[in-house]
Amino acid sequence: MSNATFNGKKAYNNMDAVFYPNSVAIIGARTDSERELKTGWVGKLTRFDYKGKIYPINPKAKEILGHRAYPTIGDVPDPVEYAIITVNRNLVANAVKECISKRVKTIHIYTGGFSEVGTEEGIALEKELKEIIENCDCRVIGPNCLGVYSPSGGPSFDPGLPKEPGSIYSISQTGVGSRRLIRLAMGKGLLFKKAVSFGNSIDLGANDFLEDALQDSDVNLVFLYLEGISEGQRFFNILRKCAEQKPVVLLKAGMSEAGKNAVASHTASIAGDKQVWEALFKQTGAIKVQTLEEAVEQMIALQTIRPLKGRGVGLIGRGGGLGVIATDMCESVGLKVPQLGKKTRKSLEKIIPASFGSTVGNPVEIGLGHTGISEQYVDGLEIVASDPQIDCLISFLNPADYIHFGFEGWAEDTINAMKKAKGIINKPIALVFLPGLNSEVFATVVEIQRKLFEHGIGCFSSMDTAIKAIGKMADYYEIIAD
Amino acid sequence: MSNATFNGKKAYNNMDAVFYPNSVAIIGARTDSERELKTGWVGKLTRFDYKGKIYPINPKAKEILGHRAYPTIGDVPDPVEYAIITVNRNLVANAVKECISKRVKTIHIYTGGFSEVGTEEGIALEKELKEIIENCDCRVIGPNCLGVYSPSGGPSFDPGLPKEPGSIYSISQTGVGSRRLIRLAMGKGLLFKKAVSFGNSIDLGANDFLEDALQDSDVNLVFLYLEGISEGQRFFNILRKCAEQKPVVLLKAGMSEAGKNAVASHTASIAGDKQVWEALFKQTGAIKVQTLEEAVEQMIALQTIRPLKGRGVGLIGRGGGLGVIATDMCESVGLKVPQLGKKTRKSLEKIIPASFGSTVGNPVEIGLGHTGISEQYVDGLEIVASDPQIDCLISFLNPADYIHFGFEGWAEDTINAMKKAKGIINKPIALVFLPGLNSEVFATVVEIQRKLFEHGIGCFSSMDTAIKAIGKMADYYEIIAD
Repeated sequence: MSNATFNGKKAYNNMDAVFYPNSVAIIGARTDSERELKTGWVGKLTRFDYKGKIYPINPKAKEILGHRAYPTIGDVPDPVEYAIITVNRNLVANAVKECISKRVKTIHIYTGGFSEVGTEEGIALEKELKEIIENCDCRVIGPNCLGVYSPSGGPSFDPGLPKEPGSIYSISQTGVGSRRLIRLAMGKGLLFKKAVSFGNSIDLGANDFLEDALQDSDVNLVFLYLEGISEGQRFFNILRKCAEQKPVVLLKAGMSEAGKNAVASHTASIAGDKQVWEALFKQTGAIKVQTLEEAVEQMIALQTIRPLKGRGVGLIGRGGGLGVIATDMCESVGLKVPQLGKKTRKSLEKIIPASFGSTVGNPVEIGLGHTGISEQYVDGLEIVASDPQIDCLISFLNPADYIHFGFEGWAEDTINAMKKAKGIINKPIALVFLPGLNSEVFATVVEIQRKLFEHGIGCFSSMDTAIKAIGKMADYYEIIAD
Repeated sequence: MSNATFNGKKAYNNMDAVFYPNSVAIIGARTDSERELKTGWVGKLTRFDYKGKIYPINPKAKEILGHRAYPTIGDVPDPVEYAIITVNRNLVANAVKECISKRVKTIHIYTGGFSEVGTEEGIALEKELKEIIENCDCRVIGPNCLGVYSPSGGPSFDPGLPKEPGSIYSISQTGVGSRRLIRLAMGKGLLFKKAVSFGNSIDLGANDFLEDALQDSDVNLVFLYLEGISEGQRFFNILRKCAEQKPVVLLKAGMSEAGKNAVASHTASIAGDKQVWEALFKQTGAIKVQTLEEAVEQMIALQTIRPLKGRGVGLIGRGGGLGVIATDMCESVGLKVPQLGKKTRKSLEKIIPASFGSTVGNPVEIGLGHTGISEQYVDGLEIVASDPQIDCLISFLNPADYIHFGFEGWAEDTINAMKKAKGIINKPIALVFLPGLNSEVFATVVEIQRKLFEHGIGCFSSMDTAIKAIGKMADYYEIIAD
């Protein structure tokens, strides 16, 4: 990364001290060990098994959770690469000054209560922080944010997140949302290389992290939650460049008028005009999502379905009405549900006799049922996939029915059938488990989804989200091909 | 119900023999007891604990699952009110003739393979059935459908459904979808008075059941899944009349071009023009939904939230970003997220100090967290509700966080807090449990939802579905007030 991308700061020219610091000081670590272990940053790093050095800073403690404590960061005998500031907002400015004197490379200001609360006091305190850091060599994340999750040896804002790194980069202005996104994603097997929640962004912001994502060759997918943006032209250029190389899933919050107000009191950002943002999506190829849940489904699609060659979808599943609903959805997002060719129908009729009342058009009624996952199901998928009009298969299964019909072993059968299908079929397959309210089914489905994801098969939580995600993928590959 | 609504048939003038028959014959009951118990109709009725008489019809059996079997329905010594035909499609016509001779009141043709398969043979077989029933006194449901679920003493197409009747009437052309809807709904505590899946509808259809729903004073909510409709003007009139008196949630499948084809091969209906249907929604006040999941959330809203007096929503929950996303959603469905009045903000500031970095505008950041559900949470709801701009509260909770922060007893605390809130607050409250992938949380949430529903508090599965459902309620009450 060139120095230019760092606003002219030259202390270091990459994000290593942000994501892989070899030491972390926690300014404002609590003396109450139990509380610190449960919700404090010393506790988080310890529980996440952070391998670098941990320096709790608190004038009243000698040791916190087994780490020697120091009265101020200046008292730490060794260099400190990364500092987390968790003290009351009135003490933050002083803590930042001490970090600068100590030549800390990255300062994460966790504390909130600055410009986002909209009071004179909060705004003044943030202005003061900006002035303090203006000419320093260090980089600042925050204030009012969770900071970093870096499973490749760095810190983590949530000790419960996976320690295994993946290939997704999550860049988010919001903290709770960021943690929620990663937790939802990890439940489905998605893994992250880096994640950051940067809050009010008095220094490092979306542009900087987006550049890092662009240049990090381990990263193949970017998630971006934004409320507002500074340096609009720079953002546009980086975003377009990045989206050309790896998909960027973008949740722009504060699109509505009331949403703009909400943004102002969340991270004190200026949300910007809706039309400008809509145009930006079209011009950059960034993939627009509106909720975190939708973002996760979109990422599942992007990680499991290769670029679509066309918009023809083969819908496969039992339940004619469900098929009709799915067909309407496909059309509404610009996908096609073409009638299958004569040859395809003939082949299907051999495995699904018309006298059963099941249809062989498209949607095709095959799937699990009374007789379980059979050779027939995989054969059916293969026949539909062989139709030249079909670019992608979406199959829906209804686990609640398997319980209903007392069909044991369905989980294993499903996994085996899909693994087999994946080996035979040369077109993308998306699998939808229709949601239900049975806890046992829920647990089993989560397990199946994770296992199939390891085999490169994407499982979705509803027809709606699957179809939307695949529709947006089709749009994305058309835009970047232009 | 007037005779006119029964297409001039005068054998009986209400739906009693459809929903409360005192005897059921199953034509095509299987001799294999184990299979019949698991998936057959004799098994279904037995497992549902149907109290009327059961007559299995099979020339090869003397007894099936403890019920004396007869070679033909004509051999049954007593009158039979209701017959279910499950034989191969080529034998259906003969079975129907035998039912007519026996003066059966209601014939349910379960068998499929008729006009919906689109073959000459299927179409011809259905035409024959129509001719056979033309001048008979009995009423026919189907072919190609699941038939009836009637917990007040009638049969059930799914023995696992609740035996306790409720106040919802589900009218559906599709079978699998119908069962799925009821199962999803029952998981949240919603109960049904009557449900019917009527398939290809050679006799009884949506109009007949809708009239029954209109006249049944136990019914306060109607769900309708339709692919096509005959007698358009009659349908329009009944629908408008019904929606004026009780909300009708309508899923019209086959709105897209490809969807129309799918409809033809599902129930052989003519789907009709999209614009006509869009106009019908506006003119009748029927509430449009697009998926079964959405239908369930809409019904939760309609059963728990009283008519809204305005469109002002107070959003309450932790996580500023989630609040911004929710605000955008509210605006996109025509709800408002007004800034709270000065007095309201002052009161909120007392319980949420600005220095905490939490916002008191709207959205308001209070909720469960490190400290658990406190008096503060209910106080916060009460303060927001007291603002004259607010017509409805939507509060979101993130159960995954309570586990994350080791907050035990959150389920009970949530229930108690909400019960208390319901007692104090005079405006509708909707509660959203943000979805997660932890099975333990899932099971607990399902339990909480059911308990709160009993106390008249609606719980929703996501912000998205809650906001959409409430937005549509606001539209509905505006339309019917005109």
